[in-house]
Amino acid sequence: MLIKANKTVVGGIIPPMVTPLLSDNLSLDIKGVNNLLEHLIAGGVHGVFVLGTTGESTSLSYKTREQLINESCKIVNSRIPVFVGITDTSIEESLQLASMAKKAGASYVVAAPPYYYGLGQEELYKYYWRLADSLPLPLFLYNMPSHTKINIDERTVVRLSEHPNIVGLKDSSANTVYFQSLCYLLKSKPDFSLIVGPEEITAETILMGGKGGVNGGANMFPKLYVALYNAAIAKDLARIEVLQSLVMDITTSIYTLGSYGSSYLKGLKGALATLGIIQAHIAPPFSCFDEKEMNKVVKNIKRIEKEIIKLL
Amino acid sequence: MLIKANKTVVGGIIPPMVTPLLSDNLSLDIKGVNNLLEHLIAGGVHGVFVLGTTGESTSLSYKTREQLINESCKIVNSRIPVFVGITDTSIEESLQLASMAKKAGASYVVAAPPYYYGLGQEELYKYYWRLADSLPLPLFLYNMPSHTKINIDERTVVRLSEHPNIVGLKDSSANTVYFQSLCYLLKSKPDFSLIVGPEEITAETILMGGKGGVNGGANMFPKLYVALYNAAIAKDLARIEVLQSLVMDITTSIYTLGSYGSSYLKGLKGALATLGIIQAHIAPPFSCFDEKEMNKVVKNIKRIEKEIIKLL
Amino acid sequence: MLIKANKTVVGGIIPPMVTPLLSDNLSLDIKGVNNLLEHLIAGGVHGVFVLGTTGESTSLSYKTREQLINESCKIVNSRIPVFVGITDTSIEESLQLASMAKKAGASYVVAAPPYYYGLGQEELYKYYWRLADSLPLPLFLYNMPSHTKINIDERTVVRLSEHPNIVGLKDSSANTVYFQSLCYLLKSKPDFSLIVGPEEITAETILMGGKGGVNGGANMFPKLYVALYNAAIAKDLARIEVLQSLVMDITTSIYTLGSYGSSYLKGLKGALATLGIIQAHIAPPFSCFDEKEMNKVVKNIKRIEKEIIKLL
Amino acid sequence: MLIKANKTVVGGIIPPMVTPLLSDNLSLDIKGVNNLLEHLIAGGVHGVFVLGTTGESTSLSYKTREQLINESCKIVNSRIPVFVGITDTSIEESLQLASMAKKAGASYVVAAPPYYYGLGQEELYKYYWRLADSLPLPLFLYNMPSHTKINIDERTVVRLSEHPNIVGLKDSSANTVYFQSLCYLLKSKPDFSLIVGPEEITAETILMGGKGGVNGGANMFPKLYVALYNAAIAKDLARIEVLQSLVMDITTSIYTLGSYGSSYLKGLKGALATLGIIQAHIAPPFSCFDEKEMNKVVKNIKRIEKEIIKLL
Repeated sequence: MLIKANKTVVGGIIPPMVTPLLSDNLSLDIKGVNNLLEHLIAGGVHGVFVLGTTGESTSLSYKTREQLINESCKIVNSRIPVFVGITDTSIEESLQLASMAKKAGASYVVAAPPYYYGLGQEELYKYYWRLADSLPLPLFLYNMPSHTKINIDERTVVRLSEHPNIVGLKDSSANTVYFQSLCYLLKSKPDFSLIVGPEEITAETILMGGKGGVNGGANMFPKLYVALYNAAIAKDLARIEVLQSLVMDITTSIYTLGSYGSSYLKGLKGALATLGIIQAHIAPPFSCFDEKEMNKVVKNIKRIEKEIIKLL
Repeated sequence: MLIKANKTVVGGIIPPMVTPLLSDNLSLDIKGVNNLLEHLIAGGVHGVFVLGTTGESTSLSYKTREQLINESCKIVNSRIPVFVGITDTSIEESLQLASMAKKAGASYVVAAPPYYYGLGQEELYKYYWRLADSLPLPLFLYNMPSHTKINIDERTVVRLSEHPNIVGLKDSSANTVYFQSLCYLLKSKPDFSLIVGPEEITAETILMGGKGGVNGGANMFPKLYVALYNAAIAKDLARIEVLQSLVMDITTSIYTLGSYGSSYLKGLKGALATLGIIQAHIAPPFSCFDEKEMNKVVKNIKRIEKEIIKLL
Repeated sequence: MLIKANKTVVGGIIPPMVTPLLSDNLSLDIKGVNNLLEHLIAGGVHGVFVLGTTGESTSLSYKTREQLINESCKIVNSRIPVFVGITDTSIEESLQLASMAKKAGASYVVAAPPYYYGLGQEELYKYYWRLADSLPLPLFLYNMPSHTKINIDERTVVRLSEHPNIVGLKDSSANTVYFQSLCYLLKSKPDFSLIVGPEEITAETILMGGKGGVNGGANMFPKLYVALYNAAIAKDLARIEVLQSLVMDITTSIYTLGSYGSSYLKGLKGALATLGIIQAHIAPPFSCFDEKEMNKVVKNIKRIEKEIIKLL
Repeated sequence: MLIKANKTVVGGIIPPMVTPLLSDNLSLDIKGVNNLLEHLIAGGVHGVFVLGTTGESTSLSYKTREQLINESCKIVNSRIPVFVGITDTSIEESLQLASMAKKAGASYVVAAPPYYYGLGQEELYKYYWRLADSLPLPLFLYNMPSHTKINIDERTVVRLSEHPNIVGLKDSSANTVYFQSLCYLLKSKPDFSLIVGPEEITAETILMGGKGGVNGGANMFPKLYVALYNAAIAKDLARIEVLQSLVMDITTSIYTLGSYGSSYLKGLKGALATLGIIQAHIAPPFSCFDEKEMNKVVKNIKRIEKEIIKLL
């Protein structure tokens, strides 16, 4: 069934919501979900993206994913659009998640490429076209080559932008040559939203034509990222410089404390716990920072919090 | 709950069973499953591995996976051991699949590393240890770096071999320096089974200490691979040479006809359809070979079939 | 021998000069070098970088590299600074090239990591420190992970920035999260120049703290890239938008016409030949575009040239 | 100029000779070269390969490479064939090295793909064909994807095997599916020599059709590897098992002591110094093991030496 999507331009700060978990590292912490969503909405975010990479979607059971979709949509209660990640290796499971999202009242679904097998671009194109044909909600493509082993190449995105149900792309590649190419090639389609993942480059990409940021740090400090977005939209370069410095402080003092790529998630959840918003529990295959690293998180996030309060 | 596994050495030809699908490319073809399993058992295989990479496990819905586990175990009816793939990004889903496998009467479970996030070796070690602690069946590790983005390093395997519930490793890396290192490092644990995936190297690895092959081609010609295994166990190098030549004929004339890595699966299912065993349907994100490539499969597989019949 | 470098901030548009070759695809076309350098200087560039990746340095014999260093410095005659690539797998050859550069009157040397063996970050750090200790000219680090297989990690750059003879970094990774991290971490060292390679992101990185661009397209249209640089320095976002569009036109209609990564070089040299500046010959392992692709280059570059003339 | 090579099958143990260096880590230790070559020849090796990856070729100056070619050929004095590595990013430098090799009396040249730029298979094919056309000595292809970023695909090898001056391939990929495919596809050309690099898989590949091993460990214990080769040629599986165990002991206790890939080279040169054959100096970008790691090398190599003496 083909839904003609209303291709209003989507943009702004859309935090990839972390998934609050209880101490078994598996069960949803519903109180935490409520705290976090109210914190985000109070912070002025333009939408929220549940079940993304930052949301540990792939580490959660399907039961927990369903619960999170339902609880989030209920709490948000249409105050802001909810984006639901349906990335999966099985198209049936993706469609099932999309169906839940639709029923719960979400606005968009987001899908990275199926990520077990290696695909060719033509295979990827056909996959997305078929998926979009069957979805009950408009689809954002999600480029995440470091995790999926495939880049959604520029030409593939351009071809897919022809589908009435595909309304944008979230790019987490950090490769801004790629992002600039998409901005240029899709100039004639201003209703196709190009949004980046990394908060470190949200400002610069908005200055060059991007529409927003799916920024993990906005879980902690939604106002900071909204302010950065507003400065970028207003082309206020002086303001950007001040705010960008805080964003980079977070990157360099919270996200990179451990030995592995998982430091980002561990730092983010550790900081959220320090700020009293949720608990720090993380689903397997990861686990929380140990005490030594947490001490650093605590010290750094308190310093950063003070600076942000001073500024906003 | 920790189960003390009976570490009998496991080995032989254990085909990674393709999953027969109906023409919607999604639903299980139960008649096909029956045909294929009877074909395999009649061919003398030493076990069967369902829900592996060749079995398109990650492309199937969980409902279909459950159905396949139940149907396979019922059909096999304890005539040979059933290995069930429980590879998943969510540990809860892996445990759920394992529980189904146990209930259905399977003998072993097989798990590749969680494959969405990038992991460090220490994270991987802890993940597997925790998984093995909770499993109701003995576990085979499954090394598949091209798909999971992580190699289970030699030292990690050695450490994991200490777990009473981890009984072996299936290596699909095709890197025989790695495999030889494992054979050497684990010499003192002869009950820890080291098995390779690629059929092209089953003979040579058995000659050097390997215990068997999880060979995709055995779906088509189980007798060929069993004969190769027997020749390798008997150290009959002349016989190996003859049989290996047929194995390589399959590799070079069936598995590599298309443009992408998916050619292996497309060729294999196309050949099985030609041989009248199952239909050729493939789950998204892939699709069957088109007519032009299928014509080549038909021509080649008929030639190869004749040669095999002559020989066995 | 340790030279205390004069760490004046280096920046602006510094084209990575293509190396004009004669029809044997090996010998230096000295007339071409002269034409191209005069074209660049007339175009207002702030420096020129010979023997970089765009300059096919690694494909040239050492005799040709020496000749190019000497001819370039003679022609430039101190009108602009000359940067000389000394990237090599042998430290002795790097030092030899640097010695030639010094003698010829060049201003800086540029070195990517040794690119045959895989290195660890600590090994890379020690290598660069030792190299910088022995160089007769100030050194720019050159991050080019796609070609060298190693990223010069942020912490390694910060540590190397302590060396009195290391004055900046050219980043060709296209990863602006990395670049933003460096801008932030090195804020206290404003005389350490951070410059990007890709022309597609020169404007945005300058807006965020970058110092310039080593842009291949400036070989063709130096005035365009200088104008873009000036607009970025002036924070003139409206002007940037207009000029960026032309830059992206070049990227999408000249650099990506063929099947391989070499399309960039083939397109660039083909365009330069069309513009009458040099001949299109390319050193092995590459070769020029064939007629079909060249026809597209000719058509596209003429259209772009007209638009640029209209605008500048 | 096209030389019709005498395609005698080449095989056996052909050690990739380490390059003995003086304490400046750059200059050739001629006495060491003499010691090592006499040690190898006394050990019964079937040839020697200078200027390979183990020989640190790319880290040496061209002057040193020339000196090594000349000294080696003089010392060997036609007692065994000398293979000279001419791998280079510049075809002119490769041809220059080949010319020196020819003049010095070497028998073969060996070339891995040019390794700075990324190439396509068609570009690689044309490059090798052109190179082989101009070489004064027969050429071995050298597959080394971990270092060169490109695999010489099976079809490319088959096409290149048609060139009268290309006589074999040394495969250091450790991927024996690839190697088996080549053995099968080139069965009709028994004079095209397929040889592996890694000593861990020399025995098994010879059992399956390979012709020999370019084994680094043969620098230390040439007799061990020659004995292993002889056992494999004789299909003496019991003897292989005993010898293979020693080979794996070296791999696991000498080559993998440090943190990086360079551990292989550091362990090998450290062991050779312990055995009194050469000094342990290594050219940049690497350096020797420090004392702590060297103590382990010393202890392990002495234990292994005793076991080898007992056995041979």
